[in-house]
Amino acid sequence: MKLATILTPHGPRAALAVADGYIDLHATDPGLPTCVKTLLAASPAVRKAASEAASSKSAVKYAANAVKLLPPVPQPGKILCIGLNYRDHAIEGGKAIPTEPVLFGKFPNTLIAHGEPIVLPKVAQKVDYEAELVIVIGKTGKNIPNTDAAFEYVGGYTVGHDVSARDWQFRGEEKQWIIGKTFDTFAPTGPVLVTADELTNPHNLQVQLRLNGETLQNSNTKEFIFGVPHLLWFLSQVITLEPGDLIFTGTPPGVGIARKPPILLKAGDVAEVEIEGIGTLKNPVVAES
Amino acid sequence: MKLATILTPHGPRAALAVADGYIDLHATDPGLPTCVKTLLAASPAVRKAASEAASSKSAVKYAANAVKLLPPVPQPGKILCIGLNYRDHAIEGGKAIPTEPVLFGKFPNTLIAHGEPIVLPKVAQKVDYEAELVIVIGKTGKNIPNTDAAFEYVGGYTVGHDVSARDWQFRGEEKQWIIGKTFDTFAPTGPVLVTADELTNPHNLQVQLRLNGETLQNSNTKEFIFGVPHLLWFLSQVITLEPGDLIFTGTPPGVGIARKPPILLKAGDVAEVEIEGIGTLKNPVVAES
Repeated sequence: MKLATILTPHGPRAALAVADGYIDLHATDPGLPTCVKTLLAASPAVRKAASEAASSKSAVKYAANAVKLLPPVPQPGKILCIGLNYRDHAIEGGKAIPTEPVLFGKFPNTLIAHGEPIVLPKVAQKVDYEAELVIVIGKTGKNIPNTDAAFEYVGGYTVGHDVSARDWQFRGEEKQWIIGKTFDTFAPTGPVLVTADELTNPHNLQVQLRLNGETLQNSNTKEFIFGVPHLLWFLSQVITLEPGDLIFTGTPPGVGIARKPPILLKAGDVAEVEIEGIGTLKNPVVAES
Repeated sequence: MKLATILTPHGPRAALAVADGYIDLHATDPGLPTCVKTLLAASPAVRKAASEAASSKSAVKYAANAVKLLPPVPQPGKILCIGLNYRDHAIEGGKAIPTEPVLFGKFPNTLIAHGEPIVLPKVAQKVDYEAELVIVIGKTGKNIPNTDAAFEYVGGYTVGHDVSARDWQFRGEEKQWIIGKTFDTFAPTGPVLVTADELTNPHNLQVQLRLNGETLQNSNTKEFIFGVPHLLWFLSQVITLEPGDLIFTGTPPGVGIARKPPILLKAGDVAEVEIEGIGTLKNPVVAES
């Protein structure tokens, strides 16, 4: 199923995305949770009931154009990000192919929904785009095995945009990337997440970024250096993963800073990230006021 | 006042720390919040009422040895960390004195309370200590001025321990520190936070780390390269700061990895971080089971 979080008069609500709108799951069936994080971690019976909400006689539906979307997981505990996970992207940045995943992160101030503006900070001059598949954790895990058993810990997948201020990312002697990655609004996600029972192979998905309609990134997750089990194994040696945690899996080639001449985000742009089988995440770009 | 979060039969509760115990603020006065984050952001009248809870006839007090402490802010939205903020520590690590703060972060899986064990990961061999003053944000802020007006945004200060796996911190080509800083249990904080109205000068506080009773770090926040207003100004250009956010302000000289021979944490150790005017944060060290 495809899940979203919508803003209703009763607050944020987990919703089932259907062709013409969103079904408020808790309003449809009070036995269903109000929160996507809780639903991902729920029993198979609860998740099955959610997937069947569309056929309920009491389904409470909002039309797609009449409801505000929030990020699919509005309050993830962690936003973990992997750098350099497509072989060609490492090469375009003049980087060695990593022998293990590179972790950085974003803080929760970065999260915005489909349709909300990416704000170009006054203090950053080189803001770039990065299309990314995002893993959403569904089950608490530590020391997860690097085998297919790791997929048990995946709740679903969503579309993410790892907006990056290059002038801040590579600043200073220490070049700690996080400062350039964690400006307010720098992590659009959505519009929906697709649960792992429906998206069973995340390693063959086309990933595209379009800027004002022009395709600037166009690759496939089969180019991953490290696949989903490897990432969960690697991260969970260090970090207990929890339901709702997001893992940005890295971006394919074609980023703006590596182009000659560079392409940087500017006010008035519209950025779209499309991932096969999930959807298209669209955000306008505005200047900080 | 000194605030803590205690685990009561009713769940986590904001508490006033007094000489012989902790006063559950909400149980004492239902007009007071259950959560330290909310209390820090509350009106001066509410904070004054909290500070006077000890003299209430209906004060609900727990004896210090009869209650479990949680981290003073159990669920901070962000754990921001500053590297290399003491001139002498930069020098001992063979680093240039930074011309601006270096940001890294920790994820919420790192948070533990006073008394809880620091767990040495099976996969990390070089786990080190770092004593740190931690700023707790009290008011939402973006583009905070680099003047004394910045202190308005400070809710208080607590004691922090930035436990660091050096073999992971400097791993790989990209040397992104966060992976070595964000192992489970690597951010002890507490036992209490002191509100900013009581601790008015954070730039002259002795900071000490003792390992098994031996003093290994002993410096003063007057050695800060970047003071509190500078840090809030710098970070809030990038990040909207929110009540409850923690800012680890960097560690003084004397870390274990820089010693000859190095001193690393081992199972059975007891680490204490003491900061003048706040308190002593004590944690045993155990091996991952």
